[in-house]
Amino acid sequence: MIIVNGQQQDLIPAQDRGVSYGDGLFETIAVVDGEPLLWSMHMDRLEDGCIRLNIAFPGRELLEAETRQLGGDDRFIVKVIVTRGSGGRGYAYPPDLAPNRIIMRSEWPDYPHDYQGSGIQTRLCEIRLARQPRLAGMKHLNRLEQVMARAEWDDADIAEGLMLDMNNNLIEGTMSNIFVVDQGKLLTPSLDECGVAGVQRRNVMKLAGESGIVVNECEIPVAELGNYSEVFVTNSIIGIWPVIAIDSLKYPIGQVTRMLQKSLGHPA
Amino acid sequence: MIIVNGQQQDLIPAQDRGVSYGDGLFETIAVVDGEPLLWSMHMDRLEDGCIRLNIAFPGRELLEAETRQLGGDDRFIVKVIVTRGSGGRGYAYPPDLAPNRIIMRSEWPDYPHDYQGSGIQTRLCEIRLARQPRLAGMKHLNRLEQVMARAEWDDADIAEGLMLDMNNNLIEGTMSNIFVVDQGKLLTPSLDECGVAGVQRRNVMKLAGESGIVVNECEIPVAELGNYSEVFVTNSIIGIWPVIAIDSLKYPIGQVTRMLQKSLGHPA
Repeated sequence: MIIVNGQQQDLIPAQDRGVSYGDGLFETIAVVDGEPLLWSMHMDRLEDGCIRLNIAFPGRELLEAETRQLGGDDRFIVKVIVTRGSGGRGYAYPPDLAPNRIIMRSEWPDYPHDYQGSGIQTRLCEIRLARQPRLAGMKHLNRLEQVMARAEWDDADIAEGLMLDMNNNLIEGTMSNIFVVDQGKLLTPSLDECGVAGVQRRNVMKLAGESGIVVNECEIPVAELGNYSEVFVTNSIIGIWPVIAIDSLKYPIGQVTRMLQKSLGHPA
Repeated sequence: MIIVNGQQQDLIPAQDRGVSYGDGLFETIAVVDGEPLLWSMHMDRLEDGCIRLNIAFPGRELLEAETRQLGGDDRFIVKVIVTRGSGGRGYAYPPDLAPNRIIMRSEWPDYPHDYQGSGIQTRLCEIRLARQPRLAGMKHLNRLEQVMARAEWDDADIAEGLMLDMNNNLIEGTMSNIFVVDQGKLLTPSLDECGVAGVQRRNVMKLAGESGIVVNECEIPVAELGNYSEVFVTNSIIGIWPVIAIDSLKYPIGQVTRMLQKSLGHPA
């Protein structure tokens, strides 16, 4: 089911600036037993992105009401897209443009293995993330880097690809954020110049802090990857997946990862 | 008028990957007296972009036939968008996805002044272009940098904003390419790391070469801008606009610019 600007339909205006320029933002949200999980964090990020791009934020109540129209009693995924709207002349846009809202339901992904329990194998992608501080952190619709990265492999044993910036620092997965454990501390890449600041990343940082684990946002050079005792990736749908391999580097599933999975209590 | 996959309509599938990820390409083409100008160069670039992004190229004949459905006897603009298609799971896409074609007619822009004759004032934009060689040169749908750049000013006396990369090199205008004249030689920024390789840019380089003017693609540091005798910008719609000012730097409209405008014989 798809709801476009409050109406159930599966079409949008051809002149929408989302398709013309990727001029908008999105959120991918887990809905379990009728509740959109981490809803307020998703709305925080979406509103922040709207402010940074100067897009009129449609409002939490409206987006929640439309999300709840998708149904409530099982487990599914909602994608909320907010574009700047339709029209404008070229790249310029009028100040009063009404944004378009696209709320899409999709099935819970049927991952082939027990990734939460057994962990995942990953690879380093060849394409690097460009440095663009003005877009960093946002979940905007300009996602060709991720599309190209994900197209680099089709080996079903590889569950995620990891992306570096141009300076050989690890930044994120194609669809996830990454954490490493270094002598008991939790490290995650700083995202001031590229990358998406995931809602689950923020949630895990909060849970770790509440459990007394020190969390640092910092540079994680690819050359250091052999020095970490645990690695995991996060997103709103998967929760926490332990990483047991990055190409030929192997990792155990450690106690920090297991403790955070337990704190998260995520049903995926 | 809008033609979507051969049918006259103004809606596209909400699940189109153009809107989800900016996963596609576009061309903006001048149509004059029934003829789409520089058609084969536009199709060369579009096909090259499809190859680089692994999108199935719909074919020149089909796109030309659909473009000609928009009418023929006056002067207008056609925007041709080709997206990867609808669907896939997240960033991953199936290998056999059918692309979506969106062919849109719009009015010839009513520029407020005789920019071809009198030249334009420009400004340097604050936002910098990110370095991403894997996307450089293509006219893809990830255009938030241009949208943000164009939103930096609303002074009607400024006809174009010029964009630098992170290393203080001039790259292009928000909607145009740029050329400078340096001791009789024509220079234009190399676009290996960022920027759109405009069809009119290629055309002007060809015309200049045929006229015996040396053309170099090179770095153009912003610090050198005071040293050039002529500056102009190009695109498929505007042809050649002389630049008479970049912020407080002033330029005359010189003979290389005038000669190339004459060679171009562009009706805009």
